[in-house]
Amino acid sequence: MSPLDFLDPYTDLALEATAAMRGDAQTEIPGVRISEDKLDHEITVNWVEVISPEGEHAIGKPMGNYITIDCAELHRRNRDVQEAVGKVLIDKLDKLLSLGPNTSALIVGLGNWHATPDALGPRVTAKLLVTRHLKDFVPPEVAGGLRPVAAISPGVLGITGIETAEIINGIVERVKPDVVICIDALAARSLERIGTTIQIADTGINPGSGIGNQRRGLNRETLGVPVIAMGVPTVVHAANIVHDSMEALANEFKHRKAFFQLFNTPGERRLMIQQVLTPSVGQLVVTPKEIDDMIEDMAKILAGSLNAVLHTSITAQEMLKYVN
Amino acid sequence: MSPLDFLDPYTDLALEATAAMRGDAQTEIPGVRISEDKLDHEITVNWVEVISPEGEHAIGKPMGNYITIDCAELHRRNRDVQEAVGKVLIDKLDKLLSLGPNTSALIVGLGNWHATPDALGPRVTAKLLVTRHLKDFVPPEVAGGLRPVAAISPGVLGITGIETAEIINGIVERVKPDVVICIDALAARSLERIGTTIQIADTGINPGSGIGNQRRGLNRETLGVPVIAMGVPTVVHAANIVHDSMEALANEFKHRKAFFQLFNTPGERRLMIQQVLTPSVGQLVVTPKEIDDMIEDMAKILAGSLNAVLHTSITAQEMLKYVN
Amino acid sequence: MSPLDFLDPYTDLALEATAAMRGDAQTEIPGVRISEDKLDHEITVNWVEVISPEGEHAIGKPMGNYITIDCAELHRRNRDVQEAVGKVLIDKLDKLLSLGPNTSALIVGLGNWHATPDALGPRVTAKLLVTRHLKDFVPPEVAGGLRPVAAISPGVLGITGIETAEIINGIVERVKPDVVICIDALAARSLERIGTTIQIADTGINPGSGIGNQRRGLNRETLGVPVIAMGVPTVVHAANIVHDSMEALANEFKHRKAFFQLFNTPGERRLMIQQVLTPSVGQLVVTPKEIDDMIEDMAKILAGSLNAVLHTSITAQEMLKYVN
Amino acid sequence: MSPLDFLDPYTDLALEATAAMRGDAQTEIPGVRISEDKLDHEITVNWVEVISPEGEHAIGKPMGNYITIDCAELHRRNRDVQEAVGKVLIDKLDKLLSLGPNTSALIVGLGNWHATPDALGPRVTAKLLVTRHLKDFVPPEVAGGLRPVAAISPGVLGITGIETAEIINGIVERVKPDVVICIDALAARSLERIGTTIQIADTGINPGSGIGNQRRGLNRETLGVPVIAMGVPTVVHAANIVHDSMEALANEFKHRKAFFQLFNTPGERRLMIQQVLTPSVGQLVVTPKEIDDMIEDMAKILAGSLNAVLHTSITAQEMLKYVN
Repeated sequence: MSPLDFLDPYTDLALEATAAMRGDAQTEIPGVRISEDKLDHEITVNWVEVISPEGEHAIGKPMGNYITIDCAELHRRNRDVQEAVGKVLIDKLDKLLSLGPNTSALIVGLGNWHATPDALGPRVTAKLLVTRHLKDFVPPEVAGGLRPVAAISPGVLGITGIETAEIINGIVERVKPDVVICIDALAARSLERIGTTIQIADTGINPGSGIGNQRRGLNRETLGVPVIAMGVPTVVHAANIVHDSMEALANEFKHRKAFFQLFNTPGERRLMIQQVLTPSVGQLVVTPKEIDDMIEDMAKILAGSLNAVLHTSITAQEMLKYVN
Repeated sequence: MSPLDFLDPYTDLALEATAAMRGDAQTEIPGVRISEDKLDHEITVNWVEVISPEGEHAIGKPMGNYITIDCAELHRRNRDVQEAVGKVLIDKLDKLLSLGPNTSALIVGLGNWHATPDALGPRVTAKLLVTRHLKDFVPPEVAGGLRPVAAISPGVLGITGIETAEIINGIVERVKPDVVICIDALAARSLERIGTTIQIADTGINPGSGIGNQRRGLNRETLGVPVIAMGVPTVVHAANIVHDSMEALANEFKHRKAFFQLFNTPGERRLMIQQVLTPSVGQLVVTPKEIDDMIEDMAKILAGSLNAVLHTSITAQEMLKYVN
Repeated sequence: MSPLDFLDPYTDLALEATAAMRGDAQTEIPGVRISEDKLDHEITVNWVEVISPEGEHAIGKPMGNYITIDCAELHRRNRDVQEAVGKVLIDKLDKLLSLGPNTSALIVGLGNWHATPDALGPRVTAKLLVTRHLKDFVPPEVAGGLRPVAAISPGVLGITGIETAEIINGIVERVKPDVVICIDALAARSLERIGTTIQIADTGINPGSGIGNQRRGLNRETLGVPVIAMGVPTVVHAANIVHDSMEALANEFKHRKAFFQLFNTPGERRLMIQQVLTPSVGQLVVTPKEIDDMIEDMAKILAGSLNAVLHTSITAQEMLKYVN
Repeated sequence: MSPLDFLDPYTDLALEATAAMRGDAQTEIPGVRISEDKLDHEITVNWVEVISPEGEHAIGKPMGNYITIDCAELHRRNRDVQEAVGKVLIDKLDKLLSLGPNTSALIVGLGNWHATPDALGPRVTAKLLVTRHLKDFVPPEVAGGLRPVAAISPGVLGITGIETAEIINGIVERVKPDVVICIDALAARSLERIGTTIQIADTGINPGSGIGNQRRGLNRETLGVPVIAMGVPTVVHAANIVHDSMEALANEFKHRKAFFQLFNTPGERRLMIQQVLTPSVGQLVVTPKEIDDMIEDMAKILAGSLNAVLHTSITAQEMLKYVN
C-alpha cells in the first residue's frame, strides 16, 4: 500500500478505482473480477466485474460490468485508429445491450452544451441517427435495418433548475424504451486517461458520478429498464495531480527511512496534503487545452458506434460515414 | 376583398391573420376586438382579442389575447431601442402573467438549437436567470426578489424522435409550475415582420404553429396550467412573397377592367398561382441573411424581459445587464 | 425576350446570367460558348466560356471559364450523392488548376464566420488539410503526397475595417503561392440553386460579386498569380422572387393582349415593379431556413475535394474521410 | 531561495516571473521596479517596470512596462465587479496608449477560434466596435467620438500554415495604424491566476509567449509602431502544479533536515522531478473546466474596455453596453 493513498481521490472509472485498491502489488480484491485484452493499434480492453456487495464497497462502484477501452493513440487524431477503437466499442456495446430485432432505445446526452469539457453527451446525441418518429413513415423493407431510437439532451441542473433524473423519468414513462443509454463526460484520476479511454457499464449513472453537480441515479432501479452508461474522462481534479506527484515522490524514496520519518501519523499526512493544496488548486477541476478537438473526436466515435450497434443497416465499416 | 387572397397564406401572427380578413376596407370581424397604441421609438402595440368561436373561426386562432409589439427600428441594432422595446414587453407580459409573490414558472424554449432561424427558443432559455434549484440554498432576504424559475429546451421531433408535447407534459407533471411560458420562432406572412415584431399570447402553442413540424398543443388544456406563448417571426414561406407581389400588382390595377378579365374564375386563379409557384419556390421557407444577428438580438430582449418580469430584484432598467 | 426581364436581377452564376440572356428561345450569345453534360446521380455540369469582350459585356462576367456542377439531390443530404458530386468537382478543379508536383496554394475563405449564409468560406478553410508549415518537419516520403497548402479566412470589411483585397495582397506578397483559390458564398437568381449548385471559375473574384459589401477584385491582375474562385449560392434577393413570379405570370398570359395593355411603356413597368417591391421586400436578401445544414454539407464537399485535388496521397474515395 | 525553484516553470506574466525571483524574502531585483495598488472590489494593480538589460535577463521579459490587474472576485461572474475591473483597465490602457485625437489602431486577436482556451483574442475582436471603414461615411459630428479602429484575427500557424507575424506585417504595411494592440491567451504558473488576472504591456508579443506554437515577435521592432499586448492567463502547464505542490511540501518541511537529505545535488533533484512528471503530466497544459464562461466574461471586459478607450463617445459607464 502506498503511503499516500489515504487521500482517496475520486474517479468515475471502475478500472482506476480498482487499480488504486490493488496497488503496485496487484493484490486481488474480493468481490471484483478483472480481465485484460491487448488488441491491435495498442488498444487495451479491461473488464471489471463487481460481483458482490463486498466488491462494491471495496471500490465504491455498484455491482455490474465495467468495460474500459483504452488507446493512447487516440491523441494522434488518426481516422484509422478512431475506426479501430469504434469497432471494439461496437463489439462491447453489443455484448452489454442484448438487443432484439425491435428493441427500442432512448439515448440520454447528459451534461452542459455550453461548457466544452461537459458537452460530450449533448454532442453525441446531436450526431445520432434518430428514428423513433419515422417508424410510421418508412416502408418495412427500409425500417428493417433501423431500430426505434430516441435521444434527448436535457441540460444540467444549473441551467434547467430541474434534477436531470426528474426530466428523464418523465420521458421514460411516456416513451417506454426497452433500454436507456446515458452518455456523460467523466472525471478520471489520471490526466493521461483524458480523451483516450471509453468506459461502458451496465450499472447506469449513480449519484456522485460525472463532473456536474450531484444528481439522483439513472439506473434500472429508478427508470425500470436496463440502463447502459457510456463515458469518456474529460477532466481530473487538480488535487489528483498533486496527489499523484506526491505518490510518485513517495515511490521514488520508498526505501529511504528519512522520507517516512516526515509522515509519522495519518493526521500529519492529511494536514500536509491540505496545506499543499490550499488555496491554489483546492477545488479546481482541470482539462487539457486541446479539449475542443478531443470532445469532437470522441463524440464522433461514440455516436458512430451507437448508430452501427442500433441500426443493422449500418455496418461497422460505415461507422463514421453517417455521423453528422 | 382583394382578388388574390383566396390563397390564404399561413401566419403565426394573429395580427396578420386579422389584417388579411379585414382587408383594405378595415371591416370589423365579428368575435375579434382590436386596439392599437403608438408609443415612443415608433413602437406600435396591437392587442387582438378573440372573444368567441365565431372570431376563432374567422382568423384561425383560438380564443384569447394576442399582443403584438412592433418596432421597425430594431433592425438598426441600437441598444436604446432594444431597451425601449424590452420595457414595453415587460409591461405586457406582466399583464398576461398575473404573477403572485411565489408564482413558479417553467420556461420552454421550443425549436432547434442547430438551425439558426429555429433557434430562438433555445437561445432565450440559455440567457435566463434560472433559480428553481437555488431556493433551498439562498437566504430569505435574497430569495425575496427571485421567483422559482425552471427552463428547458427539449429539441425538436426530428432530433429527439419524441413529440415535444410528450416531453413537456412529463416535466410539467413533476415540476408542477404555476405557469408555463413557451418561446418559439414564428412564421409571418410579411418579410418586414421578421425580427421586428414580438407576439405574446395567453393561448399557448397550438397544432400547426411554429416553423417546425406539426406538434401537439402546449396549452392550458394539455398542460393543466396557464400557458403563455412568446414568439418572434423569423421566417416566411416564399409563396407569401409571390402572393404579396401579385396582390400588390392587383392593387396597382384594381380599377382596370383588363386585369380582372385575366382571372375569370377562382379555379383559373388558383391554377395560375400554382404554376407561378412551381417548382422554384413551392415549398421553400426563407429567412433574411442577417438571421444570426437578429436571433441573438431578439433572444437578449426576450430573456432580459423575462428575467425582469419574473425576478422583482431586477429592474426594467437593468434588463440587459443580467442576460448572458 | 420576356416582357419583364428589364429588371436585370443580379446573379453571381455565369450560367444564370447566360440563361437570362438566351431566354426561352435559347438564342446564341456572341462571345459565349456553352456546353452541358449529364452525369450519374442527376448531376449536370455546365461549362460557360466567355471568349471575347463582346461576351463579357453581354453577360456581365469577365472572360474566362465558369464551370457549374448542379445536383438537386444534394437537398436529400445523402452521403453517396455528396461523394459523387465531390468526385466531379475534383475532376473539374484538376482541369482548372493545372497543378505541378510542387505547386503551392493559398486558400482564401471569404465571408463572415458569424453570419451563417455568408460563412461558407471560413467553414471550408476550417476543414482543410493545411501543410505549408509542415514541409520542414515531414520526411520526404510522406511529404511526397502533400503539396504546400496555406489557408486564411480574413473576415469581412464590416468586422475588420479593412478591405479584404488589402489583407490578401499583403499575405500573397509574403507567402508567394503559385495559385490562390478563393471560396465564397454566392447570390443566385433562383431559390432552387441554393445549396445545389457549385460554381468554379478561373477568373477570380471581381468587384460586386459575393453577398457581402463591394470589395476590390481578387484576380490574376491584382494578385499576380492565377486565382480560382469556388462558390455555392446561399442567398437570393427577395426582389428576384417577385421578378420570377411576375415573369411566370407574364409567360402564363403571353398570348392575351389584355395583359400587355397594362404595361404600355418601360417606365410604367419599372414603376409598377418598384411599387410592388416597396417596402416589404425591397432590399431584402433571403436564404432557406435549412441554411445551417446546407452550409455544413457544402463546406464538407468543397474542403474534401480541395484536400483530394491538392494532396495526391488522398484519393477521391477518401475525400470525406479527412474533413474535420 | 526555495529549494525547488530550479525547475523554472514558464509564465507569460511578468509579475509571476518577478515573484519567482524575489521568493519569500521579497528581495529586490536589480533592473526591475515594482509597485502595487489595492483598490475597491479587492482589485490589485501591480506595475512591473523592467528598466535595464540586467532586469530583462533576471526575469526573462523584455524592457518595458507590465501592468497586472488582479481580482479573484471575477470568478463570481458579478456584473458590478466586471465593470469595476473594466474601469481600472480603461485607466491603465489609457496610460500605456497615449492616444491623440486621430490615433488609428489595429487590434490583433491572436489565437485559435476553434480551441476554447486559446480563443480569447478572436472573441475580443468579434466584440469590438470597428470603425476604420466608416470614416468616409460618418458625419464629422459623429466621427468626432470615434477613432479609426481596424481588427483582425488571423488564426494560428497550425490552421493557416503561415507565421502570424508574416500576416500581421503585411496588414500593418497597408493599414499603417498608429498603434497595434495584440490580444492573446496567456500561460500562468498558478492555476488561481486563470480568469482573474489581466496583463497589459507596452513590449508587444515576443517569441515563446502565448500558449500556441512559437511565433516571431509582434513588437515595435518588427512592426515599426508601438505594440501594446493585452492578455489573460487561461492555461497552466500541469508540470507547474506538480512543481507548486513540491514547493509547498518543501516549505512545510524546510526546518527538517531529513527532507533535504533526500535532495543532495541539483542533478538528483532534477531527475526526481522528471520521474515524478513522466509520463502522465509531462507535456500537458491544462485549463479549468469552466473555461467557456471564463473566456466569454474576459472577452467582454477586454472588448468593452478597448471600445471605451478608443472611442471617446463611449463612456466607461457604458463599457459593457456596446459589446456584442
